[in-house]
Amino acid sequence: MKKNKTEQSASNHLKIIPLGGLEQIGMNITAFEYEDSIIVVDCGLSFPEDDMLGVDLVIPDITYLKDNADRLKGFFITHGHEDHIGAIPYVFKEISCPIYSTKLTNGLIEHKLEEHKMLTSVKRKVVKYGQHINAGQFRVEFIKTNHSIQDAAALAIYSPAGIVVHTGDFKVDYTPVFGDAIDLQRFGEIGKKGVLALMCDSTNAERPGFTASEKSVGKTIDGIFADNSTSRIIIATFASNVDRVQQIINSADKYGRKVCVEGRSMVNTIKTASELGYLHVPDNTLIDIDEMKAYPDEKTAIITTGSQGESMAALSRMASGTHKKIQIKPGDTIVFSSHPIPGNEKAVSNIINSLINRGANVIMQDVHVSGHACEEEIKLIYSLVRPKFAIPVHGEVKHLYAQAQIAESLGWDTNHIKILRSGDVLELSNDDEEAKITGHVHTGAIMVDGIGVGDVGNIVIRDRQKLAEDGIIIVVLTIAGGTGEVLAGPDIVSRGFVYVRDSEDLMESARAVLNDTMDSLSQNNITDWNKIKQEIKDNLGDFVWHETQRRPMIMPIIMEV
Amino acid sequence: MKKNKTEQSASNHLKIIPLGGLEQIGMNITAFEYEDSIIVVDCGLSFPEDDMLGVDLVIPDITYLKDNADRLKGFFITHGHEDHIGAIPYVFKEISCPIYSTKLTNGLIEHKLEEHKMLTSVKRKVVKYGQHINAGQFRVEFIKTNHSIQDAAALAIYSPAGIVVHTGDFKVDYTPVFGDAIDLQRFGEIGKKGVLALMCDSTNAERPGFTASEKSVGKTIDGIFADNSTSRIIIATFASNVDRVQQIINSADKYGRKVCVEGRSMVNTIKTASELGYLHVPDNTLIDIDEMKAYPDEKTAIITTGSQGESMAALSRMASGTHKKIQIKPGDTIVFSSHPIPGNEKAVSNIINSLINRGANVIMQDVHVSGHACEEEIKLIYSLVRPKFAIPVHGEVKHLYAQAQIAESLGWDTNHIKILRSGDVLELSNDDEEAKITGHVHTGAIMVDGIGVGDVGNIVIRDRQKLAEDGIIIVVLTIAGGTGEVLAGPDIVSRGFVYVRDSEDLMESARAVLNDTMDSLSQNNITDWNKIKQEIKDNLGDFVWHETQRRPMIMPIIMEV
Repeated sequence: MKKNKTEQSASNHLKIIPLGGLEQIGMNITAFEYEDSIIVVDCGLSFPEDDMLGVDLVIPDITYLKDNADRLKGFFITHGHEDHIGAIPYVFKEISCPIYSTKLTNGLIEHKLEEHKMLTSVKRKVVKYGQHINAGQFRVEFIKTNHSIQDAAALAIYSPAGIVVHTGDFKVDYTPVFGDAIDLQRFGEIGKKGVLALMCDSTNAERPGFTASEKSVGKTIDGIFADNSTSRIIIATFASNVDRVQQIINSADKYGRKVCVEGRSMVNTIKTASELGYLHVPDNTLIDIDEMKAYPDEKTAIITTGSQGESMAALSRMASGTHKKIQIKPGDTIVFSSHPIPGNEKAVSNIINSLINRGANVIMQDVHVSGHACEEEIKLIYSLVRPKFAIPVHGEVKHLYAQAQIAESLGWDTNHIKILRSGDVLELSNDDEEAKITGHVHTGAIMVDGIGVGDVGNIVIRDRQKLAEDGIIIVVLTIAGGTGEVLAGPDIVSRGFVYVRDSEDLMESARAVLNDTMDSLSQNNITDWNKIKQEIKDNLGDFVWHETQRRPMIMPIIMEV
Repeated sequence: MKKNKTEQSASNHLKIIPLGGLEQIGMNITAFEYEDSIIVVDCGLSFPEDDMLGVDLVIPDITYLKDNADRLKGFFITHGHEDHIGAIPYVFKEISCPIYSTKLTNGLIEHKLEEHKMLTSVKRKVVKYGQHINAGQFRVEFIKTNHSIQDAAALAIYSPAGIVVHTGDFKVDYTPVFGDAIDLQRFGEIGKKGVLALMCDSTNAERPGFTASEKSVGKTIDGIFADNSTSRIIIATFASNVDRVQQIINSADKYGRKVCVEGRSMVNTIKTASELGYLHVPDNTLIDIDEMKAYPDEKTAIITTGSQGESMAALSRMASGTHKKIQIKPGDTIVFSSHPIPGNEKAVSNIINSLINRGANVIMQDVHVSGHACEEEIKLIYSLVRPKFAIPVHGEVKHLYAQAQIAESLGWDTNHIKILRSGDVLELSNDDEEAKITGHVHTGAIMVDGIGVGDVGNIVIRDRQKLAEDGIIIVVLTIAGGTGEVLAGPDIVSRGFVYVRDSEDLMESARAVLNDTMDSLSQNNITDWNKIKQEIKDNLGDFVWHETQRRPMIMPIIMEV
């Protein structure tokens, strides 16, 4: 076992420890430590990799935080996306401290806590931009940024060892749809004070140039409404992108259309955002799905979930013809106001093909912009903050290294660029020329399946993979207690294995193999159940491989009477 | 059942029938019929969709061809990619007629037939560009094109009803690496005669402009060798792209490096292509993997498979550190001379991240060009051929419709653009102003798993999906023959279900549920096995759902003694 309490440094060093699980699965959760104080930035979940069969969610293993719960001063959340807030209900069943975030982010966190019936047990505080929060030896300031969800914040983390600026997920949008542009002045002002480390979003570090303003999407959407004045318009986008939803509603209103909202998460977002004042829906614009038939197609627009090809989402059901209330018709205009998240490309493509097959006109050109900073925006932030150390965060490994290259191109010394892996303990201070990884704490990814948290482990997943690949053959035997004589069986049952052709013959021959096995075991007076089971597995496995080139799971069950 | 013999038309109509399986899975195999003659273009396989668990390949259901075997005059293969030749060994176990193709294509087909021990039983004929083959009422001419594999051909299919030009997969490469540019003159000459229908590759119909020449990749590769003169260079690409391999070998040779080839399919391709004269390897350039240690890193280059992130391929094993002979080291230069095929994006990304994590420098900019025609090339072919009818082929549904839009933009009437679905029977002739879908024949996708062809059906796949999602719980009971008394059990065994935490308690409670069930059944004198099994399924299923929110497969097995 690893030692799970880091030594409290004698000297005044700040420790930064990413706790976000496995290499490939980047859950956003990072601990900052100074002497007796620990604060945590973000508390995200992740979605399972393709080979994690049956798993719904993945959350971080926070053993380290539990072991150091006495030093925990607070969680600071940068924005309300799942990969930054999704693990809160799970994590706060095990630890306790206040959660600080901006208003919309807090609203989304509350919605989550409510679902888990934890609203009263978790302390929360809404923070305004510019406000400073004291948390033990730390002070944390929230700074306005732009992102694909409103109310995103960067954090300036003041510690006795120096200031760390954490951008959260951000882009530079000089003309945001709602609220102000990113507070570049404040980044500059803090930079002038001298910043120990910058932890900057790497997601788009491979992309040159600037990310376009969210407002540019509004223009495209307006054009689509103008150009398709005779057809129904269905627009799929991310439920959490309230500005996008606002712009769609604005265009619909301008062109005299009623708007119907489809998909549970979309309905929830619109409700929360409207209540908190982040979305302004003109009166009499929204209609219920059942009211749609009262309006001609060219007077309606539908905003829907499912832009990522999610198989259970509204758009997917429309595409497959299984949506109960909306049938796709020739002439429908369907807009993907989104870009496939890596891994979803094929699912999205399949849905587009199905929609086109039903006669719909699918539009996806210029109807989306990213929420993340591209190369030139990253350079801008580096130039404003001018940190001593650069710690690229958020993104796949290749994105972190791409940001490292940007930092190098700006003149940062490679020794001053630190790419951390999960559990690494980085120690740094204004007094030292170097930042060093001085230790490693236990981290991990915990799989959530149904209401089970962590009970699905690697063995279960491996079994599921095997079952998925070639199915299972079950062999059942009843044996007399005293003599070991076979009273019934061996019977063979299979699932997910050969079904139609020749399969009866195969099972017949398999039974013969088993009978031979049992005869030979009995001749050799072998009555040990483990030996019998192993022989059955080996002999039947070899036979099945030879006949079919498949390796189903073989499971012998022996009962004693 | 559908009637599987089409009526032999009284009038002189040509029939075109795509036989390539399901909507989403486009296997290339198309029948052309005129009275007593049927010819088929291509005979491809497809790879399974994500939900076809455990399936290795998908091949077309050729019931229609079997039912009309007496009219079959020949198969004409456009080029040697799997989606055009892969189903040949399976299809030719069921039918018999000659296969016509160019030299390299034939070589690759022979390699396949050899693996299936069918080399002597299938008639083949190598065809030269410009050559005409008579096949019943048809005559077929092979026309030189360019593609990402050498020896690709378009087909001019002459029938009494008119000429059909089928491009196969193609691009326009004015400066090919090997052999001649596409024979545009011949397309123009045939166009002047008057062409009934053009069946043109749609894959890149959504992309504007022209596809760059394969030679442009050679320049980039040369530059990579020049820029990375101090490190080992590993290049991953498609095994079938012989021109690409040629250019890599040329650069390696130019910069004084030995070349090692990794991955079975890559070794095979290089062997076949060298033997047939399509690849020219300078003497003493190729070395065996075990000879590599005799040379310094900067004097070696490795060409490998796995550019699509295939989990069993050489590159994937290098990335995960499980390759027996090649370890990735900091400083290695790794080049992806490829683009992810839709659906492989995430797997490729994961491998890139792992390689970067091992310190490698990964390059993928400008090291690949497509083998398919973009918008302007498609316009060029339409303008040379000027067909009466346009039938977009090859590509997803969205690509077919994108080509249809290109044809419209060139002035083709929408009535003269036909998008066919699998099994559609399109009838057309020079005498008619319209081409009509006059019928539909049976088609389908047959799953191949191990050596089983078609024995894995939908029920097996659905079982595998269920097993993959939540695993299986097996309940075993031994019952006395006469009385129905429970002699042993109910015992519970599970796989792919809850494993670690609380799982013993859960199984304990589950056993109690089962005992209650058996008691209640016995009190009600229920001895019917089906009833008992159903009760066990229902009661245990409800219990498990309530406790875990999961729905494992529940499988009761009753034995009688």
